[in-house]
Amino acid sequence: MFKPFSSVVNTSYNRVAGHSLDRLAALSDGIFAVAMTLLVLDLALPSVRSVHHEGQLARLLLQAIAPRFLTYLMSFLTLGIFWVGQQTQLNHLTHADRHLSWIHLAFLFSVTLTPFSTGLLSAFIKFRLALVIYWVNLLLLGAILYGSWGYAVRARLVQEDVTHDTLAAICHRIVIAQSLYALGALLCIFSTYWSIGFIVLVQLNYAVAPPFRHLLHRQAKPQN
Amino acid sequence: MFKPFSSVVNTSYNRVAGHSLDRLAALSDGIFAVAMTLLVLDLALPSVRSVHHEGQLARLLLQAIAPRFLTYLMSFLTLGIFWVGQQTQLNHLTHADRHLSWIHLAFLFSVTLTPFSTGLLSAFIKFRLALVIYWVNLLLLGAILYGSWGYAVRARLVQEDVTHDTLAAICHRIVIAQSLYALGALLCIFSTYWSIGFIVLVQLNYAVAPPFRHLLHRQAKPQN
Amino acid sequence: MFKPFSSVVNTSYNRVAGHSLDRLAALSDGIFAVAMTLLVLDLALPSVRSVHHEGQLARLLLQAIAPRFLTYLMSFLTLGIFWVGQQTQLNHLTHADRHLSWIHLAFLFSVTLTPFSTGLLSAFIKFRLALVIYWVNLLLLGAILYGSWGYAVRARLVQEDVTHDTLAAICHRIVIAQSLYALGALLCIFSTYWSIGFIVLVQLNYAVAPPFRHLLHRQAKPQN
Amino acid sequence: MFKPFSSVVNTSYNRVAGHSLDRLAALSDGIFAVAMTLLVLDLALPSVRSVHHEGQLARLLLQAIAPRFLTYLMSFLTLGIFWVGQQTQLNHLTHADRHLSWIHLAFLFSVTLTPFSTGLLSAFIKFRLALVIYWVNLLLLGAILYGSWGYAVRARLVQEDVTHDTLAAICHRIVIAQSLYALGALLCIFSTYWSIGFIVLVQLNYAVAPPFRHLLHRQAKPQN
Repeated sequence: MFKPFSSVVNTSYNRVAGHSLDRLAALSDGIFAVAMTLLVLDLALPSVRSVHHEGQLARLLLQAIAPRFLTYLMSFLTLGIFWVGQQTQLNHLTHADRHLSWIHLAFLFSVTLTPFSTGLLSAFIKFRLALVIYWVNLLLLGAILYGSWGYAVRARLVQEDVTHDTLAAICHRIVIAQSLYALGALLCIFSTYWSIGFIVLVQLNYAVAPPFRHLLHRQAKPQN
Repeated sequence: MFKPFSSVVNTSYNRVAGHSLDRLAALSDGIFAVAMTLLVLDLALPSVRSVHHEGQLARLLLQAIAPRFLTYLMSFLTLGIFWVGQQTQLNHLTHADRHLSWIHLAFLFSVTLTPFSTGLLSAFIKFRLALVIYWVNLLLLGAILYGSWGYAVRARLVQEDVTHDTLAAICHRIVIAQSLYALGALLCIFSTYWSIGFIVLVQLNYAVAPPFRHLLHRQAKPQN
Repeated sequence: MFKPFSSVVNTSYNRVAGHSLDRLAALSDGIFAVAMTLLVLDLALPSVRSVHHEGQLARLLLQAIAPRFLTYLMSFLTLGIFWVGQQTQLNHLTHADRHLSWIHLAFLFSVTLTPFSTGLLSAFIKFRLALVIYWVNLLLLGAILYGSWGYAVRARLVQEDVTHDTLAAICHRIVIAQSLYALGALLCIFSTYWSIGFIVLVQLNYAVAPPFRHLLHRQAKPQN
Repeated sequence: MFKPFSSVVNTSYNRVAGHSLDRLAALSDGIFAVAMTLLVLDLALPSVRSVHHEGQLARLLLQAIAPRFLTYLMSFLTLGIFWVGQQTQLNHLTHADRHLSWIHLAFLFSVTLTPFSTGLLSAFIKFRLALVIYWVNLLLLGAILYGSWGYAVRARLVQEDVTHDTLAAICHRIVIAQSLYALGALLCIFSTYWSIGFIVLVQLNYAVAPPFRHLLHRQAKPQN
């Protein structure tokens, strides 16, 4: 069968490129770590010259820093949730391939956008456009992670002992979360603060609630 | 027994999510690395235009940079101490689970706050409010690490060969350090410089003193 | 045979230094992660004071941010391509040596230049000089990676089961990509936008196209 | 024998804390990666408003960026040399202990100072004080790495198969390099440019020269 030269090269190269799950995980951890820490640069310090006594500093911190602290917390939760989500996927794979690597690079591209969309929302917290851009970022993260799992299943990269239950749980999880984020974004019709509050509550539910639920249901599920 | 749909999904997902100690350690190392290096951005350079000869540069470095160097050193010691502390905990676990991952994400959130609270203290070094905020950051780091150990023990994530002695040592260590930090913070009643000096001494004792003590006691403990 | 003192030292040291592929990969992942995330700082936020309503924000984002978004995307793709390329090489080696470590440190030096050359191109997007500097950065990355592979083959660091096909594919790949980048850079005779567009298309072809081609050819290649 | 309470706690804790070479290496790679990439922020872009045509941009790049590029290159070489040096040490150890961890945290503290001392030298390149501060940074890096090796040998952390030759080579290496750096710093009596040029040449000799020497001596040393 005739194959043009560049196709031969690409085929050989693609068969050997990007097979390391370890390095994909390492790059991801690095990018998440930098993005999570860069978020704090958004909490700009009050100017030294404009503050003359403790009361002024307290007022400035409450007025200028407190709203930014909220978006900072929201974005840290976002990145934490997607870090756990990505890790869960990668832990169930036997190996990566070139296409999976590029799907995850696209995912990491959305991760690096988070400090920008967070900064935009911090600066323009009452603007619906800023909130919609933030939501598009959330949507991108979820959609690419969903696509990545679909690809991994189709390309048979998933470990053999992964049950159908787990396969489905990972997908449902993303769909439910994204539905709630979309609902939160819609609330900006009333006020962007409603949106932010709703999204933070959804995120806290994912992050914090399970331990409490876990305590309530402890007797019902002796094996954890 | 009836379980609503979302609970089924959550249960399956939570059983598989966040089990990798390696990636938790890697994310932590990344965040500590970025936070430790970002601290240096606080040592703002003197403006080129305001300096005309060596003497002026020396004076500016001593007056403007020296106090910031002190808070920079204090925060690097803080992060170093908590990095060693977290590492010690993780080294004694057999695996992570979703809840432990989120407890450590909360810990890492406090780590990312350090460059902010350090910058605030550098800029407003004579303000008690800045010192109290810095101390709250220290308290958060300690409290979450303490809670993380408690959770790990309860959830049976700790390796079997860990003795009761070690379990207790890790807890006592945090309680003693936090008591000393609280005492240091209280000293700000007199002066914030007293607080900073006291906290740095406590930290240097943790970091530097053991080797010296080690040398003094060497004959008493031949097996190290 | 007479050997001067410093040569004895160097020889012993060089025989033991820099043999760890793992740490070389870890440093590389760290530098790629920081460089990829720093790129986003280029997307400077519009000033809060100059924006009074949603329409203004939308216009500013389209006019001021959109061109910067293009260079940001191009540089993320660049770094992604070279990350996959370096990973592919390192995955085929048995170990590193001191010289390979320094070749890769030179490669990482070019990686750290990327945020600078990207920022320059964002700021002066119509200046041919900025585009040529960006292209020199691309050329450096490719040339050093090419040299690294040549050195690894000559120094017998490559795993024994690597076929001649793979050896050649890795080299051809770099030469073809660099020829296309050079052609793209030449297009700046007409307009720098043509250059940027062409380079982004070449990069997207490397990153995105293979999966599609993969789908088209699926029946012809049942074993992936 | 009587031991006060806090000493009991410290002893148990110190015996279990900081034993992981892997995490020490991971934190080091992270800090080196961030520091190496932050250096590029020193290459400040020319202001967009002050540049109207290509010639102006070229002139500004040559006048304002070129000297900063030199200090940037010098610092990247510095960090590369000390990264290889630290890696070589850690690769020869069987495990870490708490004291070694803190010695390396002090080393990493000096690494995080590098972007500051580099920025200072870039901004005040003709000031001897800036050069002396840069040299103190180099001295700190070397002295702590020297001390770390001494400690590792005394505390029996070194692998058993490490020959006396290697032990000595690692020490001699540091002493010779530091002597040359000190000589370079002394040259600032004549001009800081002489110092910088000399130090860069010494560093390039460490980084680049061995491969060439290697090629020249290839026939004399068939086994590499």
